[in-house]
Amino acid sequence: MSQAEGFAEALLTALPHARTLGIELLGVESASVTLRLPYDSRLVGDPATGVIHGGVVTTLLDTCCGIAAIAGDASALSVATLDLRIDYMRPARPGAALTARAERYHHTRSVAFLRATAWDEDPDTPVASAAGAFMLERGQ
Amino acid sequence: MSQAEGFAEALLTALPHARTLGIELLGVESASVTLRLPYDSRLVGDPATGVIHGGVVTTLLDTCCGIAAIAGDASALSVATLDLRIDYMRPARPGAALTARAERYHHTRSVAFLRATAWDEDPDTPVASAAGAFMLERGQ
Amino acid sequence: MSQAEGFAEALLTALPHARTLGIELLGVESASVTLRLPYDSRLVGDPATGVIHGGVVTTLLDTCCGIAAIAGDASALSVATLDLRIDYMRPARPGAALTARAERYHHTRSVAFLRATAWDEDPDTPVASAAGAFMLERGQ
Amino acid sequence: MSQAEGFAEALLTALPHARTLGIELLGVESASVTLRLPYDSRLVGDPATGVIHGGVVTTLLDTCCGIAAIAGDASALSVATLDLRIDYMRPARPGAALTARAERYHHTRSVAFLRATAWDEDPDTPVASAAGAFMLERGQ
Repeated sequence: MSQAEGFAEALLTALPHARTLGIELLGVESASVTLRLPYDSRLVGDPATGVIHGGVVTTLLDTCCGIAAIAGDASALSVATLDLRIDYMRPARPGAALTARAERYHHTRSVAFLRATAWDEDPDTPVASAAGAFMLERGQ
Repeated sequence: MSQAEGFAEALLTALPHARTLGIELLGVESASVTLRLPYDSRLVGDPATGVIHGGVVTTLLDTCCGIAAIAGDASALSVATLDLRIDYMRPARPGAALTARAERYHHTRSVAFLRATAWDEDPDTPVASAAGAFMLERGQ
Repeated sequence: MSQAEGFAEALLTALPHARTLGIELLGVESASVTLRLPYDSRLVGDPATGVIHGGVVTTLLDTCCGIAAIAGDASALSVATLDLRIDYMRPARPGAALTARAERYHHTRSVAFLRATAWDEDPDTPVASAAGAFMLERGQ
Repeated sequence: MSQAEGFAEALLTALPHARTLGIELLGVESASVTLRLPYDSRLVGDPATGVIHGGVVTTLLDTCCGIAAIAGDASALSVATLDLRIDYMRPARPGAALTARAERYHHTRSVAFLRATAWDEDPDTPVASAAGAFMLERGQ
């Protein structure tokens, strides 16, 4: 496990609502992070269809962006969302795990800008996409 | 308890991630809903400051908008987020409960548009604000 | 010229601020529209770099989404933006024309949801992206 | 005219699409800017109603946020939009001028965060609201 992966894993473990949902770390690269959310009937928003609740997808994408904002930045101590937009393209397929990948496309010393998508089977037909700005806090 | 309040309470109870966080229903009016999130050390994002994690505020605002989208609409069966933006103004005060209020300012037969704010002490100095579009599903 | 292209051309011509900027129609498909904005020194935001002003890119993307919301829908009479988010990835290359493509990925009877990107050379490395909801008005 | 007002006036004058629309500077305070857009039949989006085109309101709010991001910051040289969201509450009243006010509620050395509203008669019943992040460029 690389240092960045260890840091990302620690960040994820520290989030009680992410842990509750069952979000797992799949991988960390210099400016991107991939998470996975196994399907679980506890996460269903509509029992008639078995589709996962949109709020769960929001938490997955917010978490993925936050970790990607900081994971590749060795001198940042913590991260906080400044703004976030999420667009839902279509319902997630019942029974399928979700994968989310966030990419840091721009950053200054104290703010990182991220884009992310979440999908069930094919990254090119996403369930939802996100974009946001995240504050990085550093030591002295 | 009014019918709208009973419906809103049932919606909230059905959301496992909202229940995990401890979100409570405060009130329902024709086009607005108020929720409350008691402070809990499990929700802290940064142990050094005791500030609640931003993702928790996102879930509170998303949940509040979703319930307000449908609570006053007796013929809607379910609700799903279509798009959502959240802006964070400042950190929540450690130890304080959060209150969130969402207002449905526009709607068509199948889409409702919402604005919401979350605050710790004074509604006029919010911790975060949100705006979004929500899909309403109806029977035949 | 197809009926949808004629309608899109008429919509574009009716927008004084789009005309002022020099926005041109490139193409219309069933659920997508492509516009082009030739480079013009009048549109520069920073004379030191020659980069086009961000507000011009906003107008290009807003216009592209609005036309794509209605162009393929023969019974809609007019369109109005309900919400719109724009994310800027990088500065546009000085001297290059911008191309914008918007896709309608979801719609109800009265609301269409759009995604769009704008680029100078390669659609896969966009200058900016947009997502929004648009209201469609119909006759009786 | 204060130095901040002179700077804001110069910024506004430099924007060809803002000039075309007829946007005027009303006032500048330390962290807020107020603009005014007189009603003009050239700006109408729908001749049947006389309502101003949404894209014009977008440009007004984007311009107002951009000027407020930089106007009170004497050492910043230029400003560029990083992300922007606009929500439309209701149509503007035909014949009425629009006023827009943007407030910088958070900033780092290189990024400013803004909120804005536009209204025709009463600031408490806005036509549209906006939130966004803006990059500030400085000299050495």
